[in-house]
Amino acid sequence: MKLYTYFRSSAAFRVRIALALKGVAVEHIPIHLRRGDQVARDYAAVNPQRFVPALDTGTTVLTQSLAIIEYLDETVPRPPLLPPGPEGRARVKALAQIIACDIHPINNLKVMMYLRDVLKVADADATAWSRHWIGEGFTALERLLAESPETGRFCHGDSPGLADICLVPQVYNAGRVGCPLDAYPTIRRINAACLELEAFSGAWPDRQPDADL
Amino acid sequence: MKLYTYFRSSAAFRVRIALALKGVAVEHIPIHLRRGDQVARDYAAVNPQRFVPALDTGTTVLTQSLAIIEYLDETVPRPPLLPPGPEGRARVKALAQIIACDIHPINNLKVMMYLRDVLKVADADATAWSRHWIGEGFTALERLLAESPETGRFCHGDSPGLADICLVPQVYNAGRVGCPLDAYPTIRRINAACLELEAFSGAWPDRQPDADL
Repeated sequence: MKLYTYFRSSAAFRVRIALALKGVAVEHIPIHLRRGDQVARDYAAVNPQRFVPALDTGTTVLTQSLAIIEYLDETVPRPPLLPPGPEGRARVKALAQIIACDIHPINNLKVMMYLRDVLKVADADATAWSRHWIGEGFTALERLLAESPETGRFCHGDSPGLADICLVPQVYNAGRVGCPLDAYPTIRRINAACLELEAFSGAWPDRQPDADL
Repeated sequence: MKLYTYFRSSAAFRVRIALALKGVAVEHIPIHLRRGDQVARDYAAVNPQRFVPALDTGTTVLTQSLAIIEYLDETVPRPPLLPPGPEGRARVKALAQIIACDIHPINNLKVMMYLRDVLKVADADATAWSRHWIGEGFTALERLLAESPETGRFCHGDSPGLADICLVPQVYNAGRVGCPLDAYPTIRRINAACLELEAFSGAWPDRQPDADL
């Protein structure tokens, strides 16, 4: 399988973690988003949305990180990334989607470029924008994690899963925009527990072959 | 079950369609987002993120529309909203997530209020913002739908599912911001096919008891 990836993309970071947790080795094909590799015609043929990640399974190309991760979970069942019962699955997916739907898309590279280039938003206001949406999402996430008996060492119980896979890249992004994390002790604790695992720390942006920092 | 809903919320619209397709009747509890019902303390106790929809199943409260819909699909299997095979499931989820992750969150009420109230973006520029992200997402979606042999009367085959459930509310939103749809004939065709079904047309915002237009 081939993974189209960019070291700093949160969504690609998620899929790198999931592949590592499943023990699935893939060829990495870097698509440098800041240099505009994604607008080249041959990448649009791979993924018409021109986003990373995309996973070429050999028979089809899968896009959208959550869809890819759930596909991996169905086709490579061990270790599971979602709990067995419908309520637990819905909880983990909701935690993941707070990040993947309500925080990350509002702060991604494309949106930040539109704010700066089209709307002429000043750098300080653009940074405040990122911190605002991360803060809103993390406030809800912290409460959902801290108040639930289902939270364990990780977001759901004591093994890492889909929600943790979304959490760690978002904490990385929060660090990049200087978003204070003092108010989110549970998020910080789970992030630290994840980063003790090679599947998470090895997927870290700065450790990717295409990293140009 | 109780559904916390707002007539104009795309995400609540999705869950209303899914419930209707499954033939599940629920009590509707309107949360008027423009009037700020969601900031009242008793709603934050239901959903710490203070978003709609939230589905109170009697034993737990589920949040995030895609997580809720997949929970319904697991607990009320007929008719299925996702295809049986992992690749088909991944395709439908990716189509849904293009809308639910990459279009809708960037244009929702909260974000538009921040653009206008905090960043002082002019109304015309805010409208252009909405049209831009809908256009980007719909361009990719149109191509993915038009070029795939798996697209049928609906987004995947000839029965409605998760992707259609996301498509119709997003087309409704596109209409509200005057986004031209001429370039998206497949999206328009599928939207029209969906709206022939009472499950979709009955979930329409203007037909909800809490609609104040």
